[in-house]
Amino acid sequence: MSDSRPDPAGAWFRAEIVEQPDALLRLLDGAATIVEAGRAIRRRRPRFVRLVAHGSSDNAAVYGTYAFGLLGGIPAFRDSISLSVYYGVEHELRPAPVVALSQSGRTPDVVEYVERARRRGALTIAVTNEPASELAGAAEIVIALQAGVERAVAATKTYVNQLGALALLSAAVGDRATSMAEELRRTADLLALTVEQLTSEAEAAARQLVFTGRLFAIGRGLELATAREIALKLTETCRIAAEPLTTTDLSHGPVAALDPLFPVWAVATRDPCLPTVLEAAERVRASGAALIASGDAAGEVEGAGLRLAVPTAPLPVLAPLLSIAPGQLVAGALAAARGLDPDRPVGLQKVTLAA
Amino acid sequence: MSDSRPDPAGAWFRAEIVEQPDALLRLLDGAATIVEAGRAIRRRRPRFVRLVAHGSSDNAAVYGTYAFGLLGGIPAFRDSISLSVYYGVEHELRPAPVVALSQSGRTPDVVEYVERARRRGALTIAVTNEPASELAGAAEIVIALQAGVERAVAATKTYVNQLGALALLSAAVGDRATSMAEELRRTADLLALTVEQLTSEAEAAARQLVFTGRLFAIGRGLELATAREIALKLTETCRIAAEPLTTTDLSHGPVAALDPLFPVWAVATRDPCLPTVLEAAERVRASGAALIASGDAAGEVEGAGLRLAVPTAPLPVLAPLLSIAPGQLVAGALAAARGLDPDRPVGLQKVTLAA
Repeated sequence: MSDSRPDPAGAWFRAEIVEQPDALLRLLDGAATIVEAGRAIRRRRPRFVRLVAHGSSDNAAVYGTYAFGLLGGIPAFRDSISLSVYYGVEHELRPAPVVALSQSGRTPDVVEYVERARRRGALTIAVTNEPASELAGAAEIVIALQAGVERAVAATKTYVNQLGALALLSAAVGDRATSMAEELRRTADLLALTVEQLTSEAEAAARQLVFTGRLFAIGRGLELATAREIALKLTETCRIAAEPLTTTDLSHGPVAALDPLFPVWAVATRDPCLPTVLEAAERVRASGAALIASGDAAGEVEGAGLRLAVPTAPLPVLAPLLSIAPGQLVAGALAAARGLDPDRPVGLQKVTLAA
Repeated sequence: MSDSRPDPAGAWFRAEIVEQPDALLRLLDGAATIVEAGRAIRRRRPRFVRLVAHGSSDNAAVYGTYAFGLLGGIPAFRDSISLSVYYGVEHELRPAPVVALSQSGRTPDVVEYVERARRRGALTIAVTNEPASELAGAAEIVIALQAGVERAVAATKTYVNQLGALALLSAAVGDRATSMAEELRRTADLLALTVEQLTSEAEAAARQLVFTGRLFAIGRGLELATAREIALKLTETCRIAAEPLTTTDLSHGPVAALDPLFPVWAVATRDPCLPTVLEAAERVRASGAALIASGDAAGEVEGAGLRLAVPTAPLPVLAPLLSIAPGQLVAGALAAARGLDPDRPVGLQKVTLAA
């Protein structure tokens, strides 16, 4: 890899999407550290685990709440950073373990949250692509994402590796890590296939979205993380006002904003939440809005004008590692069609130091 | 009150905004029940409290996480409904208390979540405007919102009463309920003043927003709930694609979508999170986007083209009961200016039975 960017604009972003399977395999080379971190959580026998992050790392944290619930056997919640860092609330006598996610490891209030939690005796785990970062220095245990340098500002491979790390960590907490590493390797192979197969379909989809100014992305359960991350990619790289919603929250108000020029992207995956996605999609169709469907159940979304199907993951809990790919690929193709540069969106830096 | 709607369209919505202070006082007439519910939580000495809800009730739940942290002395988290109801995850040996919020008391998966939690021995508390509803029947303790019949589909007075109920409940958990009821009464007086004083300013603001198709609403800490609820009101009543973001999440990507036609509404309140709001507002200005500022610190947001200032609340934790008013008033005025009916938005029913 070189520091000078290949032409054209967005080349880093697209190259990093393609590189994701290799990046995931590199993460798995360090599986022992992740499993040991999971065992450290397990030994504490906590009542719950706290996840803290912003941006796409917070989308990974949403996935983490499901991974811990389904694999780890203990509840995990995304904690309020501001309650601790800005309001100074410290009330737990026996503080719960913290898993802090930051690709750069430099997000100031995440670092401060971890410092405070560690001072009070909490087990602190940093999940970061920069093992020499402030966050890594602040935490007791460091999980290195091993994604390699991510040059595009919009995160892709670090996001997928965060999901992989959280799946393996949760499985280790639930004492079922052995098979998980193997299932993740199979997922990496399927992800390579997905990216290859969907590239031209994503370009066709981008052509249809080229004048879209606003969009809702809907998902439920495990795939809420995917809907959030697809919306974020489309917002930051394509300047679409793309809002993520749970399928139920769509019905609690926002459905009233829909019209034929307001498309809805439904993440449809064969899992227990699929009926809620199909029901929401039906409401979308009734409003006259256009439907885009992705996921391994994209074919089951009636009336979708665009479908971006992905393979079924080796385990249901790993579906989000594959179902993010259509969103990334469409974001890359759409940015190119609009003459925007996803490697360097206007007003963004790779490291967000804002409070 | 009569069942036949007064003219013109939106008359119920506006009447219910004006009625909020009276509705809040009615809630306080039932303060004893809320305080007893708080004591019931306290007696269990839980490690944390679970909040579950959708839509504007979920925005109130966001407030609840801060109210419990600041007043109750124990962490509260918005739990995943789907993990329990759709994935069937049941792992806690000693389940934490549940506070379930639903204005109608009929949201199916919230009812089912409460039924499951109660069967497993959790203390369950329903916060609802319908004490004869399924949700009320499912829960061990019922807090009636006492908001009176809410005829407009878009919630207003039930939202403010949810905030009031959560503030008092949290204060009771923290054994400081006595003064809280009094501070809430003072807040009701200030809310009456706020609604009266801001009505014409809101109409002027609506004229400036009449062609706006998309908007971000930003807030942090306690006021994240307000940013979320303002965005929801604008989406469901005015058909704006209004997305709520924390001040930090704005910087982690979405800021790249801004341009001079993409306004940002900043909720600026004098509290420890205000610096993050002012910093985010500065980034918004740098992008050339228009700024709308509301809250008791609206005057401190440099470069705001619209300001909707509210009085300072009797206690910092009660600020969101006042700072929601500008959003409600602008939504009502803007819907009228656009010829939309906030009493009956297209595609919405008062009771959302969708999964």
